[in-house]
Amino acid sequence: MRRFAVERAKNIVRSYHRSLSSSFSFSSSSAMSSRKSSPVTLENINPKVIKCEYAVRGEIVMHAQRLQQELQAKPGTHPFDEILYCNIGNPQSLGQQPITFFREVLALCDHPAILDSDQTHALFSSDAIARAWQILDQIPGRATGAYSHSQGIKGLRDAIAAGIAARDGFPANADDIFITDGASPGVHMMMQLLLRSEEDGILCPIPQYPLYSASIALHGGTLVPYYLDEATGWGLEISDLKKQLEEARSKGIAVRALVVINPGNPTGQVLAEGNQREIVEFCKEEGLVLLADEVYQENVYVDDKKFNSFKKISRSIGYGEDDITLVSFQSVSKGYYGECGKRGGYMEVTGFCPEVREQIYKVASVNLCSNITGQILASLIMNPPKVGDESFESFSAEKDGILKSLARRAKTLEDAFNSLEGITCNKTEGAMYLFPRLHLPQKAIKAAEAVKTAPDAFYARRLLETTGIVVVPGSGFGQVPGTWHVRCTILPQEDKIPAIVSRLTAFHQSFMDEFRD
Amino acid sequence: MRRFAVERAKNIVRSYHRSLSSSFSFSSSSAMSSRKSSPVTLENINPKVIKCEYAVRGEIVMHAQRLQQELQAKPGTHPFDEILYCNIGNPQSLGQQPITFFREVLALCDHPAILDSDQTHALFSSDAIARAWQILDQIPGRATGAYSHSQGIKGLRDAIAAGIAARDGFPANADDIFITDGASPGVHMMMQLLLRSEEDGILCPIPQYPLYSASIALHGGTLVPYYLDEATGWGLEISDLKKQLEEARSKGIAVRALVVINPGNPTGQVLAEGNQREIVEFCKEEGLVLLADEVYQENVYVDDKKFNSFKKISRSIGYGEDDITLVSFQSVSKGYYGECGKRGGYMEVTGFCPEVREQIYKVASVNLCSNITGQILASLIMNPPKVGDESFESFSAEKDGILKSLARRAKTLEDAFNSLEGITCNKTEGAMYLFPRLHLPQKAIKAAEAVKTAPDAFYARRLLETTGIVVVPGSGFGQVPGTWHVRCTILPQEDKIPAIVSRLTAFHQSFMDEFRD
Repeated sequence: MRRFAVERAKNIVRSYHRSLSSSFSFSSSSAMSSRKSSPVTLENINPKVIKCEYAVRGEIVMHAQRLQQELQAKPGTHPFDEILYCNIGNPQSLGQQPITFFREVLALCDHPAILDSDQTHALFSSDAIARAWQILDQIPGRATGAYSHSQGIKGLRDAIAAGIAARDGFPANADDIFITDGASPGVHMMMQLLLRSEEDGILCPIPQYPLYSASIALHGGTLVPYYLDEATGWGLEISDLKKQLEEARSKGIAVRALVVINPGNPTGQVLAEGNQREIVEFCKEEGLVLLADEVYQENVYVDDKKFNSFKKISRSIGYGEDDITLVSFQSVSKGYYGECGKRGGYMEVTGFCPEVREQIYKVASVNLCSNITGQILASLIMNPPKVGDESFESFSAEKDGILKSLARRAKTLEDAFNSLEGITCNKTEGAMYLFPRLHLPQKAIKAAEAVKTAPDAFYARRLLETTGIVVVPGSGFGQVPGTWHVRCTILPQEDKIPAIVSRLTAFHQSFMDEFRD
Repeated sequence: MRRFAVERAKNIVRSYHRSLSSSFSFSSSSAMSSRKSSPVTLENINPKVIKCEYAVRGEIVMHAQRLQQELQAKPGTHPFDEILYCNIGNPQSLGQQPITFFREVLALCDHPAILDSDQTHALFSSDAIARAWQILDQIPGRATGAYSHSQGIKGLRDAIAAGIAARDGFPANADDIFITDGASPGVHMMMQLLLRSEEDGILCPIPQYPLYSASIALHGGTLVPYYLDEATGWGLEISDLKKQLEEARSKGIAVRALVVINPGNPTGQVLAEGNQREIVEFCKEEGLVLLADEVYQENVYVDDKKFNSFKKISRSIGYGEDDITLVSFQSVSKGYYGECGKRGGYMEVTGFCPEVREQIYKVASVNLCSNITGQILASLIMNPPKVGDESFESFSAEKDGILKSLARRAKTLEDAFNSLEGITCNKTEGAMYLFPRLHLPQKAIKAAEAVKTAPDAFYARRLLETTGIVVVPGSGFGQVPGTWHVRCTILPQEDKIPAIVSRLTAFHQSFMDEFRD
């Protein structure tokens, strides 16, 4: 069993490197032609940088950008008239509209000079104006252009803590909140804190969001994979967790933390409460930091599942700060707001001893603070309009419209994938992605190997060049060796979905006709 | 000579560690009492994190924040009624007003829905409205809430490149621009790229802005110090550069890059053109990447000096991309705009081979993109209102008012320090800081050693506790061993300056009366 696990781990690493070499083969080859006079070459830069990979914006996306430029320069040069980016969770790039109330408050905080003018009341809702005043009063000198406390403006952290407490039914403390430029910098900070060498490991789900593998690579640690079970809707088996942990420890790796992404990216499952309790118990017993990626907490599309934060689960078991060390990541980029470009988010850090907390603060202080617009937005998503506020009805209509539409799109695309020969696709219970499995014919796999490409990357490239649809090969997320997937977002607007389904269907049929064994 | 240099280098590291241990002595002591159940302790986190130090927000500032809370809770408990933060280049926190045109454009881009309304014309200048439209049209789908290209929105990079070309008189390319959340992330990216181990070194000025020592420590490299000569107005001696380079190489350190901060932080000097040419020649000959911190390019206060970018200097010598590898850092946080909270900036990257450039892009892509508000602001500072624009006159009045006032404050504080017994202070030609030298009596030095504190930290703490004025000890920036300094910003508003001068003068006299040998 163990040897099998090692083999799987090795294979994953290999599959990473395969797609790595495919992504950067041009680089490596042209490295030879590198200008003599340049003191910096691929051979003498930090090898951790070369090892790092981020498929969500990798080779396939760069290729899509080239095709888009060709389409703009010479329309009609390709069998499609637009590129459909289903590679990244970037809702507003595909037409999702921002929440009006949030944008009103941001605009007023950017230019407070207009707050005193009468015309402002004609342009902005009264509760947005009131909220802007409230926020400005929480900022020393109302200076939205000043560096803030390195954890973020105290009044905004109070609002976030109150939002967490209301969500969980357990208290939250503003001193535990670190507001960050999106969730990613918080993840990097934790990896930087925990990883001393490649003898330190982080348990990550496979498939995983490649930020984790990228950050672990950049910080020189070891990714210890555990497998989500596709057959049971990407279930998380504690027995597999235990096995992988023992396996890693037997190889002398000190496992520092467990990453859990709930709702799942790229896998779209929502963890059951009982499963979450097992995970908390496991981290407590094994002395692991629980790194809970909860950025999709607002994105749940099924009635029989609901989001529970790991903090709520821990506290409801009766575990406090002395029992479990927990970091929860949240972002303004996902949910119904999808404000990716604002780069706002926070991590809630609990169960660390004061002297380590001081070190986390010190690292945050080196970067001074996160952007104030993102900080304000992070407080708004955790404290949106309430019943009775002028904006409440329009806000609710915007929010529900987006979430209901995402649920419809998820179902339509899921059915479309499942209707295709040799493709099986689990339900998208939450998040923003489908992760269909491609049961590819041997002939297709051989064709891919012939061009030194992972079979799923081969499929994704063909799909792009034939239809303009951009998906990310499963090899960029990790998958059980010998299985192949793609990640496809549910984010194209509903009027685009029929075209996507028909193009995808037509492409897949001809692909199978070409490669069917 | 060499042994002396090594000694100096060692002393600097020691002085770092001294103030480090003083900053975090509480931590280390209380580490013993660390909760058993916590899996994370000072003993098992990444030692690079512990080694990293950032004095600008270090122990003295945390102490100031405690005093401020005490003042709010119990007014009258201290011999002053407010804390005067002269520790950090954070203009708007001290009352500097933002540039109206910039904020108008940001507000309109945050809430484009109001662009079509008539009332908007009553609230916003017409050129701000036009600029907002122009910027929105450069953003695919006008989606200011979408992740952008990982280098930043192409149209904004075009504007930045045009601004650089107009500034330098030499062409600039949008593909060379990486827009970042302030300048710091760009510096971190370069350290991450260049530093493979502690055998890799970066030549840094001493005194230096501690972001560099912090980033080098976090990325596990070695800081190779070169000394600015206080006696010649913080001149940069190529002979000392050469000596330190050879010294480092003789110890087996591969020196990858040279950091130059111009105008200087914390030292406030503006480099002479001839000196810059020597630096370019030196980097070319020695195969060093030139990391040019040019974030204070708008902050020059003397008539006989002007800012020249290192790119302009290189190109005017006739050196192109094949001759010199150069990175220039710029930020929206400094200049006359001082928009620290917006976290905008860029690095212009030239002279790297394509395959290394691809690696830089890959690392940028892991963090998706910098915040769009900061991106827009970065384009605005490089393309402000022009003659004939509706806002030009008010814009110019705001800009000149801020810069002239900064020049007056610099002169007043410089004279004040120079009038004090045993203090000498070089001219602030540029940037936002004074770095006076404290010729401390032996008795004061012994008193500091008795409490295990660096003498300048001892002085700064006394100053804070007596007057509420917060300055940063020179040991946080590095200084020739046996010399002691503090860094004091020129940013308090002019109505505060007289009080600062009188409090400072009274404090210093009593300090000397207490410790004079």
